[in-house]
Amino acid sequence: MTTYQAEIQIMLKPSVLDPAGTAVTKALQQQHYDGVQQVRIGKFIQLTLLAPDLAQAQAQVERICREVLTNPVIETYRFTVEAKA
Amino acid sequence: MTTYQAEIQIMLKPSVLDPAGTAVTKALQQQHYDGVQQVRIGKFIQLTLLAPDLAQAQAQVERICREVLTNPVIETYRFTVEAKA
Repeated sequence: MTTYQAEIQIMLKPSVLDPAGTAVTKALQQQHYDGVQQVRIGKFIQLTLLAPDLAQAQAQVERICREVLTNPVIETYRFTVEAKA
Repeated sequence: MTTYQAEIQIMLKPSVLDPAGTAVTKALQQQHYDGVQQVRIGKFIQLTLLAPDLAQAQAQVERICREVLTNPVIETYRFTVEAKA
């Protein structure tokens, strides 16, 4: 078994309102951080797991994302998996 | 001016307790998602901004991360910036 490190990025779908992101956008604009147009806030999850090989680690992470970590109605996700140093 | 898309990953420092991550770790283990060892939850922020060139876009994102988006006492961050298609 090898230890793998997965990094998962979860974003709200573009059609879903993001009030926290809108608040940060306005705050940055009012504080004169020039050029800021839009901010959207999602989740970043680091997951450490044991698996026999990379393919099975990826399959397990995909399953965990789909079944537990994300709401497919309003969120999308992407992830990377690599062997942990 | 060009439109740039920044993707910012904010993580708790390893020494900072992450109760939400611990709860997810235990939930996954109890639901027999094999091999899960640790989960840590951070933030993922997508920021769209206008800047004259890539170097200035990166400098602006760095400044926003340092001054607004993160708490340097407990968090670390990394980001990528690229021209938006």
